[in-house]
Amino acid sequence: MNHPLRLGIAGLGTVGTGLVKLIDRQSNQLASRLGRGIEIVAVSARTRDKDRGIDISRYVWFDDPLELAKSEDIDAFVELIGGEGGIAKDSVETALSAGKHVVTANKALLAHHGTELAARAEERGVALNFEASVAGSIPIIKSLRESFLGNEVRRVFGILNGTCNYILTKMEQEGRGYDEVLKEAQDAGYAEADPAFDVDGHDTAHKLAILTSLAFGTEISFDSIYVEGISTITPEDIEAADDLGYRIKLLGVAQKTDSGIEQRVHPTMVPKHSAMAEVDGVTNCVAVQADAAGDVMLIGPGAGADPTASSVMSDIIDIARGTILPPLIVPSAHLSPYKPARMRSHEGGYYIRLSVLDRHGAFAAIAQRMAEQEISLESIMQKRPRTALPGIDASRSPGDTLPVVMITHETLEAAIRKALTAIESDGQITSKPQMIRIEKL
Amino acid sequence: MNHPLRLGIAGLGTVGTGLVKLIDRQSNQLASRLGRGIEIVAVSARTRDKDRGIDISRYVWFDDPLELAKSEDIDAFVELIGGEGGIAKDSVETALSAGKHVVTANKALLAHHGTELAARAEERGVALNFEASVAGSIPIIKSLRESFLGNEVRRVFGILNGTCNYILTKMEQEGRGYDEVLKEAQDAGYAEADPAFDVDGHDTAHKLAILTSLAFGTEISFDSIYVEGISTITPEDIEAADDLGYRIKLLGVAQKTDSGIEQRVHPTMVPKHSAMAEVDGVTNCVAVQADAAGDVMLIGPGAGADPTASSVMSDIIDIARGTILPPLIVPSAHLSPYKPARMRSHEGGYYIRLSVLDRHGAFAAIAQRMAEQEISLESIMQKRPRTALPGIDASRSPGDTLPVVMITHETLEAAIRKALTAIESDGQITSKPQMIRIEKL
Repeated sequence: MNHPLRLGIAGLGTVGTGLVKLIDRQSNQLASRLGRGIEIVAVSARTRDKDRGIDISRYVWFDDPLELAKSEDIDAFVELIGGEGGIAKDSVETALSAGKHVVTANKALLAHHGTELAARAEERGVALNFEASVAGSIPIIKSLRESFLGNEVRRVFGILNGTCNYILTKMEQEGRGYDEVLKEAQDAGYAEADPAFDVDGHDTAHKLAILTSLAFGTEISFDSIYVEGISTITPEDIEAADDLGYRIKLLGVAQKTDSGIEQRVHPTMVPKHSAMAEVDGVTNCVAVQADAAGDVMLIGPGAGADPTASSVMSDIIDIARGTILPPLIVPSAHLSPYKPARMRSHEGGYYIRLSVLDRHGAFAAIAQRMAEQEISLESIMQKRPRTALPGIDASRSPGDTLPVVMITHETLEAAIRKALTAIESDGQITSKPQMIRIEKL
Repeated sequence: MNHPLRLGIAGLGTVGTGLVKLIDRQSNQLASRLGRGIEIVAVSARTRDKDRGIDISRYVWFDDPLELAKSEDIDAFVELIGGEGGIAKDSVETALSAGKHVVTANKALLAHHGTELAARAEERGVALNFEASVAGSIPIIKSLRESFLGNEVRRVFGILNGTCNYILTKMEQEGRGYDEVLKEAQDAGYAEADPAFDVDGHDTAHKLAILTSLAFGTEISFDSIYVEGISTITPEDIEAADDLGYRIKLLGVAQKTDSGIEQRVHPTMVPKHSAMAEVDGVTNCVAVQADAAGDVMLIGPGAGADPTASSVMSDIIDIARGTILPPLIVPSAHLSPYKPARMRSHEGGYYIRLSVLDRHGAFAAIAQRMAEQEISLESIMQKRPRTALPGIDASRSPGDTLPVVMITHETLEAAIRKALTAIESDGQITSKPQMIRIEKL
C-alpha cells in the first residue's frame, strides 16, 4: 500500500462537511479500491467552534487558508470556500504555486480566472480538478476532458441551475405565476433571499463558461456570454408551450457556428417528448453533441452536500491514482482564443407571444412585418377563439387584446428582433412582445 | 512531444473501420490535445482485399491476429473481432501476456472471462479497457470506474439493447404486434436475421454482467443473471401500461439487497413521465443510484460505427495519457465473490394481465388467491367495461373472456408466482398470465 494522499480542506460549509462525512464513510473501501488511503490532515474555515456533526479535532486547524494551502503536510488542497476572488482565489494560487494539487467546486473562480489557473497548475505539474463546479454529481467535466476528447464537439448545453428549473417546474405543474413560486422556493430553501444570481442566469453562465472551454478547447470567456433570466416567463407562456408541444427550461448553450462559438443562457423551448423535458425540479442535465459519440446526455442532482461531495471525491481519487491531466483538455499553450459568434447571427426557431389589439388589420400588419424579414411561421395560435362575425362573441369589446402565439421556422435572430421592433412601433400590440428561443435537440 | 502510441487493430468490421476513420479525422487535433500522436501501425482482419472506404495499405498487415497481438511494433492491441471465445479471447490473452495494453469492445468476452482477463492485465501492469462494450458512446465504464468510485452504489440499471428498445418503441408508437415489428426491424437492419440473442435478453445480460462488477466490486458472474426477453409483450400490455402511466422497456438491473445482489434482465414498467421512458428507439441509457452521487443517468447512442469508435478512442486516449487503472475498479485480489440474490426474493410492484372467464365468481376467486399471498393491489383495470345488469351488454356472451389488468403494491416475487400458479390451476383464466415487473426510478 502506497502512502496515503493527504488532504487539506478549506471551507467547511455544506459541501465541506459533506466531504468529510463521505470520506469517513468510504475510507476503508476506498483504501482497498485505490491501494492507498485518502486522509484529511488539516482544515480551515471561518469559524472553528461550530456544530457541523463532524469531529474536526482530528485535524490540524488553520485559521488562515493561505497557510493551509502551502502547508508541508498536505499533498492536495481542497478549496470549498467559494467566490470569484478574495481568499478563495488567493489560496488556490498559493496552493498551485506551492506545488499542491488543487480540487475546487468554485465555478465563479474558474469562470473568471480558469485559464490562468490552469496554466499555473500545468507549470507546476499538478492537478486542478473541478468536477463539482458544474452540475453537481454529473461527471460532465471528466466526460469532456477524457471520454469525448477524441471527438469534435458541436454543442454542449443543458439545465445547469436547479433553482430556475425548480421554479419553472412548479409554475408548469401548478399553473402559478413566477413571483408566487419564487417566494415559495425561497421559503423552502431552494432559492436565495436575493435570487438574482440564479434567476437572472448568471450562475448558469458561470458553468457554461467552463463547459465551453472543455468542449471546444478555447480559453474561458465568461464575459462574452449572452444572458437572459427566467423572470419574464408567464403562466401563459408555459401553457402555450404545452399546447404547442414544448416545455420551457433555462438552458446554457455553447455551440460551434460558422462565425464563431455561441455562448448563450436563456429560457428555451424544448420538445415535450424528450428526456431533457422530463428533467424536473432541482435536477440538472448536460447534453453533448459530438461528431463520433453522437448525442449523449447526462442527468443528475445539480447541487446538495452529497452530490457535490461525490464529485469532489472523484477529483481527489484521480489525484490519488496519479491521473494528472491538463485542466482544460488541451495544454494551456494550445488553447484557442475564444471567438464569439454574435447573438444576432443566431439561427433557430422562435416562439413569439403578442398581446394584439382586437381591431381590423392588426394581425395583417403583424404578418406583414414578419414577412418583410422573411420569417416564415410554423404555427399560429390564438388562445381566445375569434368568431367569424363580430358581435356574436359577447365577451369581446373594442379595445380588447387578443393573445397571439407564433412559432417561426428557423430564422436569424437579427430578423426576429427587427420584426418585433417594427411591430412594437406600429402600435398594434399593448405590451412588450415575448420571445423565447426554441432549441433543437 | 512524446513518442506516439502505436496501435494494432484486429477486426475491421463496422467498428474497426469507424475507428480508422475517426483516427484519420482527429489525429492532428488529438496530437495537440495529448502532446502525443496516436498511430495505427498494423491491422488484421478476416479479408485483406475488401472495399472498406479506408486505405489499409498504410499499415502492416497480419493474417493472424495472434501475431499482431504480440508484435514488437505495437504498444496497444485493439480487439474488435468479437465473440466470447476463439480467436478474440486468444488474441487478447496473447496481447496481455506480451505486456500490451488492450482495448476491446467485446462484451461477450468480458461477461464470460472478464475477471481472469483483468487479473492478467494487472499482473502485467497494462490496461484492459472496454468502454465500448456497454452502451455505445455512453461513458458508463469510466463513470463507474472513476467518477463514482468513492460512492456506495445501490443499483445500476438501464436500457442496454437498442434492438429491443427499437421494437418496443415501434410497438408503442404504432400500436402494432411484436412479430410484425420484429420483421420490419430485421428488414431495416436494426435486428439480426436470428434475433434471439437480442430479443431474448442475452445481449443485455452480457452488458449487465460487466456493469454489476464495476458497480459493486464483485467478480463478473454472467451465469447468475435472471433473463426474460421481450417476445411475450403484446400491444395490449403496451396499451394498458400507457393507461396506467407506464411505458415498457427491456431493462438490465443490478441491485444490492439484504440477501445479495440481484442481476436481472426483463421487460419492465417505468413511469411514463421520466427521462428513462423518453429513451426511444435504438438509444441506450444507464442509471446509477449511489449513496452520495444520488440518481445519475446517462443517455446516448447504444451502437453504430461512430459511437462505438468514440468509446474505443476514449480508452485509447487513457492509455496514451498513461492512465492505467485496475480494469474492474478494485484490484483483482480485492474483488468480492458475487453473492446472488434469489429472484424469488425480489421485491417490487407487478403488473398482471389476465384473460378472465366471464362468469360469476371468477374475479372473486382471483382476488382471493392474491389475498392469500398478502398481495395488495394499487389498481385494477378492466378494459371492456362490465355493465351492472348482465344481458344489457349485447356484446357479451357466456364463455367470453375479460381482460383484467392489476398493479400490485410492493410485494415478494415468490408471492406473485404462487398466486399466479394458484390462479392458473383454478381454471378461471383462459391463457397464461402476463406478469411484468415495475421498476421504481
